[in-house]
Amino acid sequence: MLSFRVKNGKLKATSRPLPKLRQGWALVRVRLAGICNTDVELLHGYYDFRGVPGHEFVGTVEQLRGASTAKKNKWLRRRVCGEINISCRALGRRPICGFCRRGLKTHCAHRTVLGIIAHPGAYAEYLTLPLENLHIVPDGLSDEQAVFVEPLAAACEILDQVNVKEFRSAAVLGDGKLAQLIARVLRTAIPRVGMYGKNENKLALARRAGIQTKRVRGDASDLKRIAENFRLVVEAAGSPSGLALAQHIAEPRGTLVLKSTFHGAASAETWPIVVKEITVVGSRCGPFGKAIALLQSGKLDPTPLVARTFPLLHAPAAIRFARRPGVLKVLLKQ
Amino acid sequence: MLSFRVKNGKLKATSRPLPKLRQGWALVRVRLAGICNTDVELLHGYYDFRGVPGHEFVGTVEQLRGASTAKKNKWLRRRVCGEINISCRALGRRPICGFCRRGLKTHCAHRTVLGIIAHPGAYAEYLTLPLENLHIVPDGLSDEQAVFVEPLAAACEILDQVNVKEFRSAAVLGDGKLAQLIARVLRTAIPRVGMYGKNENKLALARRAGIQTKRVRGDASDLKRIAENFRLVVEAAGSPSGLALAQHIAEPRGTLVLKSTFHGAASAETWPIVVKEITVVGSRCGPFGKAIALLQSGKLDPTPLVARTFPLLHAPAAIRFARRPGVLKVLLKQ
Repeated sequence: MLSFRVKNGKLKATSRPLPKLRQGWALVRVRLAGICNTDVELLHGYYDFRGVPGHEFVGTVEQLRGASTAKKNKWLRRRVCGEINISCRALGRRPICGFCRRGLKTHCAHRTVLGIIAHPGAYAEYLTLPLENLHIVPDGLSDEQAVFVEPLAAACEILDQVNVKEFRSAAVLGDGKLAQLIARVLRTAIPRVGMYGKNENKLALARRAGIQTKRVRGDASDLKRIAENFRLVVEAAGSPSGLALAQHIAEPRGTLVLKSTFHGAASAETWPIVVKEITVVGSRCGPFGKAIALLQSGKLDPTPLVARTFPLLHAPAAIRFARRPGVLKVLLKQ
Repeated sequence: MLSFRVKNGKLKATSRPLPKLRQGWALVRVRLAGICNTDVELLHGYYDFRGVPGHEFVGTVEQLRGASTAKKNKWLRRRVCGEINISCRALGRRPICGFCRRGLKTHCAHRTVLGIIAHPGAYAEYLTLPLENLHIVPDGLSDEQAVFVEPLAAACEILDQVNVKEFRSAAVLGDGKLAQLIARVLRTAIPRVGMYGKNENKLALARRAGIQTKRVRGDASDLKRIAENFRLVVEAAGSPSGLALAQHIAEPRGTLVLKSTFHGAASAETWPIVVKEITVVGSRCGPFGKAIALLQSGKLDPTPLVARTFPLLHAPAAIRFARRPGVLKVLLKQ
């Protein structure tokens, strides 16, 4: 099968045999894969990554190993998306770790992660995942919607961590792919959502989804110019200046959700967190069920974020395109 | 009256008339004042401070303005300690701010702060505070205990923010004055409290209070040597390396309380907060009632932290002494 591997900061096409399946795992033919900022970071050496990147996908179940007839009837040839954290239980490790015992699979101490940590990802014709990670995509959703389930679930994680209905307004810092999804998710529950971003085109896209926007410079001067205060702030700008601005606009005793996983030491001061007694909530992967339900409800449409779809064969060009300023979601199609 | 003011990074003795009292305020003769790291920072320009520092004190109420006979009977000539945040209500501002309306006086948008922001502090013969800020010191407590009520209340703030009884163990990063109090407060509710610090004498003092200790170097090498994990971590080391170590030892989905208000941009990475979905709780001033009750209960004795007591007249020498490595609490007595 065709797959793309990271080599010296670039994607290289390789041909490999189909992967072997473990008991309880599924072989999925990838229909559509999304490019995330994390994928771009992987190419720059994040997580010392080697292998096939890609963790946003919608695909079709082609094979199952060790599944009952009932499970085969349920899953074979169905469209699925998949949770990316692979638990020690699914990896066959016994006894399972304390986090898995507590049901915190996304924090499994021995996890591998699809296309991120020690498990080949979705920039390939096929991928494998444990059946327990898969979610059936309802017929009413298009592939272009379903490929957003993974990042949308990450946005929905905030709903599991913060009682958003307590807030009448919220701010999202950043105007990128994840920030756009987060603002839309919050907007389904909070009357006034403001987005602070640098790119006018991206902000305009958010405005069309009922989000208020404000242009920022992304440097220290923002702290002098911006005086608004919010009891709920989500930092998804992916930069140290975003963190500083987030602390600045968060009200005393407010909640600041951190979504950015930018690497490299940030020159961040933390005293405002103490003086204002802000609660900072780190937020990563989220509930797929909620994301699928949101898409089905029609309250939220992520597809205007799609900038362009490339054939899988042109994955290197797709990554280069995804890096251009102003470009949001880029997809790979087979 | 004699007071000490910050001038060019040093304390200078000055003689001023007694301060005038607002309606509802009290004149307090300072009996004993404590030196806090914040006071040392104020001398280095923190908060662009000018004026009389000192916010930890026990004193005697000498005058009241606009108080009923009942209040006079209750307060005059009594020993008191005092909350340091002075609300806009007490400052006569109308309408009062939204935080004061919500009962969050410590976050008042227009507050002044005793010895820190625009209100003369306790390195003086007398200070003034609104009666609403004062707490009577029970007869059973010595001045040496009562002068710890303010920092002990700051340690008790954690009890109001985190349900500490959920935890069977906790880590405190730092071995300084505040860290020592925090570890003792946590130890009243949590079976195993570990302190990570650089100074062997300070760690030994903590061990005598039933706290487990571990010596650290206070640099990046700690991250390699220390493998323990805690679901509750309190950062009170007052340094960026403390923050990094705190993130390192905090378990996924754990709680990290930030107590340090060190200034100057810290080279801190925040991605572990996101990846581990840590909840970071900024924590500042706390409940005086709880602190007084803890002292009365006898469960906690802060007085072994006292390194030396100087006469108020020798305040400059006291500050110099307080800066020495290994020295914990230094007091000023009249």
